[in-house]
Amino acid sequence: MTDSSTNMRLKLPITCFILEIILIILFGVLVVYDDDTDAKAFRTSDDTDYNNDFYYRYPSFQDVHVMIFIGFGFLMTFLQRYGFSSVGFNFLIAALSLQWATLMQGFFHGLHEDGKIHIGVESMINADFCTGSVLISFGAVLGKTSPLQLLIMAVFEVTLFAVNEFILLSMLGTRDAGGSMTIHTFGAYFGLMVTRILYRPKLEQSKHKNSSVYHSDLFAMIGTIYLWMFWPSFNSAVTAHGDPQHRTAMNTYYSLAACTLSTYAMSALTAHDGKLDMVHIQNAALAGGVAAGTAGEMMLTPFGSMIVGFLAGIISVLGYKYLSPILEEKLKIQDTCGVHNLHGMPGILGAIVGAVTTAVVPKEVYGNGLIKVFPDVASGDRETTYQAGVQAISLVITLAIAIFGGLIVGFILKLQVLGAPRDNACFEDSVYWEVPGEEHFEEELTAVRTEETDKMNS
Amino acid sequence: MTDSSTNMRLKLPITCFILEIILIILFGVLVVYDDDTDAKAFRTSDDTDYNNDFYYRYPSFQDVHVMIFIGFGFLMTFLQRYGFSSVGFNFLIAALSLQWATLMQGFFHGLHEDGKIHIGVESMINADFCTGSVLISFGAVLGKTSPLQLLIMAVFEVTLFAVNEFILLSMLGTRDAGGSMTIHTFGAYFGLMVTRILYRPKLEQSKHKNSSVYHSDLFAMIGTIYLWMFWPSFNSAVTAHGDPQHRTAMNTYYSLAACTLSTYAMSALTAHDGKLDMVHIQNAALAGGVAAGTAGEMMLTPFGSMIVGFLAGIISVLGYKYLSPILEEKLKIQDTCGVHNLHGMPGILGAIVGAVTTAVVPKEVYGNGLIKVFPDVASGDRETTYQAGVQAISLVITLAIAIFGGLIVGFILKLQVLGAPRDNACFEDSVYWEVPGEEHFEEELTAVRTEETDKMNS
Amino acid sequence: MTDSSTNMRLKLPITCFILEIILIILFGVLVVYDDDTDAKAFRTSDDTDYNNDFYYRYPSFQDVHVMIFIGFGFLMTFLQRYGFSSVGFNFLIAALSLQWATLMQGFFHGLHEDGKIHIGVESMINADFCTGSVLISFGAVLGKTSPLQLLIMAVFEVTLFAVNEFILLSMLGTRDAGGSMTIHTFGAYFGLMVTRILYRPKLEQSKHKNSSVYHSDLFAMIGTIYLWMFWPSFNSAVTAHGDPQHRTAMNTYYSLAACTLSTYAMSALTAHDGKLDMVHIQNAALAGGVAAGTAGEMMLTPFGSMIVGFLAGIISVLGYKYLSPILEEKLKIQDTCGVHNLHGMPGILGAIVGAVTTAVVPKEVYGNGLIKVFPDVASGDRETTYQAGVQAISLVITLAIAIFGGLIVGFILKLQVLGAPRDNACFEDSVYWEVPGEEHFEEELTAVRTEETDKMNS
Repeated sequence: MTDSSTNMRLKLPITCFILEIILIILFGVLVVYDDDTDAKAFRTSDDTDYNNDFYYRYPSFQDVHVMIFIGFGFLMTFLQRYGFSSVGFNFLIAALSLQWATLMQGFFHGLHEDGKIHIGVESMINADFCTGSVLISFGAVLGKTSPLQLLIMAVFEVTLFAVNEFILLSMLGTRDAGGSMTIHTFGAYFGLMVTRILYRPKLEQSKHKNSSVYHSDLFAMIGTIYLWMFWPSFNSAVTAHGDPQHRTAMNTYYSLAACTLSTYAMSALTAHDGKLDMVHIQNAALAGGVAAGTAGEMMLTPFGSMIVGFLAGIISVLGYKYLSPILEEKLKIQDTCGVHNLHGMPGILGAIVGAVTTAVVPKEVYGNGLIKVFPDVASGDRETTYQAGVQAISLVITLAIAIFGGLIVGFILKLQVLGAPRDNACFEDSVYWEVPGEEHFEEELTAVRTEETDKMNS
Repeated sequence: MTDSSTNMRLKLPITCFILEIILIILFGVLVVYDDDTDAKAFRTSDDTDYNNDFYYRYPSFQDVHVMIFIGFGFLMTFLQRYGFSSVGFNFLIAALSLQWATLMQGFFHGLHEDGKIHIGVESMINADFCTGSVLISFGAVLGKTSPLQLLIMAVFEVTLFAVNEFILLSMLGTRDAGGSMTIHTFGAYFGLMVTRILYRPKLEQSKHKNSSVYHSDLFAMIGTIYLWMFWPSFNSAVTAHGDPQHRTAMNTYYSLAACTLSTYAMSALTAHDGKLDMVHIQNAALAGGVAAGTAGEMMLTPFGSMIVGFLAGIISVLGYKYLSPILEEKLKIQDTCGVHNLHGMPGILGAIVGAVTTAVVPKEVYGNGLIKVFPDVASGDRETTYQAGVQAISLVITLAIAIFGGLIVGFILKLQVLGAPRDNACFEDSVYWEVPGEEHFEEELTAVRTEETDKMNS
Repeated sequence: MTDSSTNMRLKLPITCFILEIILIILFGVLVVYDDDTDAKAFRTSDDTDYNNDFYYRYPSFQDVHVMIFIGFGFLMTFLQRYGFSSVGFNFLIAALSLQWATLMQGFFHGLHEDGKIHIGVESMINADFCTGSVLISFGAVLGKTSPLQLLIMAVFEVTLFAVNEFILLSMLGTRDAGGSMTIHTFGAYFGLMVTRILYRPKLEQSKHKNSSVYHSDLFAMIGTIYLWMFWPSFNSAVTAHGDPQHRTAMNTYYSLAACTLSTYAMSALTAHDGKLDMVHIQNAALAGGVAAGTAGEMMLTPFGSMIVGFLAGIISVLGYKYLSPILEEKLKIQDTCGVHNLHGMPGILGAIVGAVTTAVVPKEVYGNGLIKVFPDVASGDRETTYQAGVQAISLVITLAIAIFGGLIVGFILKLQVLGAPRDNACFEDSVYWEVPGEEHFEEELTAVRTEETDKMNS
């Protein structure tokens, strides 16, 4: 298993140290506390403490945080010999991404007149969101990259994410609170392009490790369930205070519930002998959250949310069953976790639902609350149909930046020096990790072997 | 393992699709946002956002949500070959139940003058509560039912739960914030009757699978610990704002702590050689939460809470050790998870403690807060002793509806078409799930076998 | 494995019952609801409910609670045959400690003029904090003690913790919101002294069990990630409302992120062949939380926080790699979890950073908010330099009480009657737990064995 190019002894420490030192210097120069975080901003009357944004958003932040580190991390432990890397690389690149995202998002749309980036709980959530996008891309290349490649991918992807987010949210006034476009569509198509460029024709040499075992599927269900439970918090984390946050959480809750039923139905219908397939349950049941990412804050109604979730589950299972094999064989896209089915197609569905909901629901339905959901419509600057058009164009822009960006970054990651594993060493922890001396079951197997051999020889 | 009746290829999809489409239609006709969720309800002054019920209850909701999906789901993974079904069927029937519960609870006690069901975070919590009751019943029949049987059970049980809840909370004015009666007693005795009707005289054919292995017990502890930690949130999730929520959480916290000590004590005392038994730790340590479900919001004091928890732990361990074998042998009740010991008896204890606390604590102790805990007493409509009588009668009603309901539903579930597993295929995932090609340990076992056989033959 | 002295049949129940009954009696005599928890305290105007401390602190409390029971519990499951004890004894001693801590902390610094201990959500957090300190010490002796020894250790350690906390926070006016000194330094050095006194020269007899297996390392990562994610809540849980809570959470978030990068870098740099070592990732990545425990609430800035976290990760990995072997060989300190590297040295670093930050940041930087962070400076009673001196002295006092206390308690725990395991039975669940009849893999191994033997004989 040892191979000089995959040896991380110097490459990984040097990269981590350089990146972290750059981050620290930039934070020192550019970042300050915002008004709700700075001691100086304290108003003498104690009564206003409950108005600190911390109390509106911190519980949501922690739910999102759990999704990023436990949800994504454990979802990917389904591989039998890649659990350390799934949780461990997820941890590493998330820790990098959230710092870099603070700077990039702050630079593009958080700079104050003092030239500084002002941060607080909302910027923390946004940094975690951007990190989520990187982790989606990680799912596409899972098992086939070195930690060094992942760190480099994260640096570029965070930057492009911030550019796309800036164009959509700041320049165009697109609404996308739960990130159907900015997070899911972007992360999925970026990752799919990267894995396309990194195509390995001989990946079947590691095929026997590209599958789950009984316990690894249970670990993965920890990830699935946490993502499922906290998705209402994800979609509502940065909406306006009050009813929008409340409504978004509720819409997502019902979308996910409906999605779960259609996922189980489609899994039994399409799988062998009517048996349920863990791959579908672990992934497609989450598509309802992705698909409610844009329209969740709108007056979608629980009824509309359930229809969206119901469709998302169907599309996602069909993708796993029929589309993924085609993508791999015809388009040479080796998508380890099937992010196209969980984030790609449901993300596009979410963008379309967002545009349609914007166009179809009359602005009178929002009453006074219009300003919280469509401020540009409330101010009279644009009509709902115009806003709907903006939503649709935003999807196209996101796809373009993601695909073009993934293409470039894929080529950068091909650099030999970055230490990708050989084709027969993919999906294997021991390339980059000290793996414990093997389980005692194997020791006993050896004992049996020895014992039997002794008997044979005697 | 293949068996035409257990084949879910058409049955499960058809059932899921029909149920979900009915749900979507009924939501479309009947359900609207409540005042804290609707954009139109936004009051122009921004200051009132913190008064949105979302900020009082959403963190509690998410804790309850974790209990339902992770807590119940993983608690049941203790079986060695039933982890996929434990987490996976839990996921499926919970996703159905919470949608159906929204309608049934809304129909029975949430209809507004406009004939619509108004929903928000509190109805989400109540839907999760009702789901919890179904999952308790699932624990009684665990390993012996098809997913189809479970969906049918959920539809009926949710309906009866809503009827019982309506009689208690709306008609009688019973207090039961944490659901000692409505959730735990109801779910347990309903499930026990169902499993009684589904009695399998030849279940010993699957006996070797009706037990844990080392890792499965650790997965189950994830469920246990999450239930234990978040039970304070469960009991306080729908109490009145302010001190009742605060007090209920605290009472439950101390009840659980005391319960844990008596559970460990009783486990060592009753088990073989003074060794601790994981079954007790995984279950009985939670009885203190169940038993504080009714009186938790009252002025029970931490002192009273600790006594209640202490007793609940003792009762529960004794139930696992001495009563469960009797129930199985004499009454033919095969209670896989021992829900009688964790939810049944502690639920009844909780109901009794609630009635006694109501009767014994003078209303003066509540001061101005009386209106939040006993509104009918505060308004002068009834005395505390009368309220205590109502509490006691409520337990009897709950038991009657649960037992009678479970009886009927048990007979419905006997329908052959529902695809129950054969006696020798209980507690086995592979009946309804694609189980991964077996762990590499077994592959190596095969390798050993082949190798040895080759040697024998040569 | 059976051994009369390790038999807990009577010892454990008697101890648990006596302790719990004493606790219940003392709670009955001494403990009452505080103003935000008592029904009587309800003010007739409904508007003030959002001012109940419950809404400021309960989400943080639950995060801390998860750290205590899931975080610490699962972090210690890395041992291959000690998972039941890691989670289970963690559960038992935490349940005891939080009750005893409520009384001890209440007695030392919570007594009101009515001679009662008034409790609410803040005292619950403080009780969990004190429990955390006991669990740190548990990490040092992990695998080598009976549950009885642990209960006795908890009783004494909680008492001494409360004394130290009283001296620091109440008498000296030390600032230590996240407990770099009171929790981490105290718990670590107390535990290190206990394990020194309990030194086992023949511990290598259990050496083969003092290591991880593949799955146990994944279970441990659940603990790690939860601790990492919720550390911002830990450090901010009892700071003043508003900006201090917000700022502390954010400082800790960036400290941890920087720490993670330096941990991965150092792990690859120091470990065999540049491969990452799970021991470092599971532990050292958390040192950034410990090191931000004192200065987190101060105007440390994200920049400062990241430097602190960066250094903490480096120190911690170096400790695991180079210092732990020396401590074991030269000083006879067998520190199972390496608490010296995760809590000891980072705790001291945190205390020093706290003193330096106090001294260096001009009080003008705090503006009106000075009263929330340094009330004694705001009131004019002392200068920041004096406060910094107090901070430094507090570290010395903490170390003295922890080391001296651990020394005494270590000798108490040597009592034979407490049932410590023999040297060859350490790190083994089956001494105190019913362990399930072994996994089915082993059954199959037996089957292979029998089969082969039959063939041999035929």
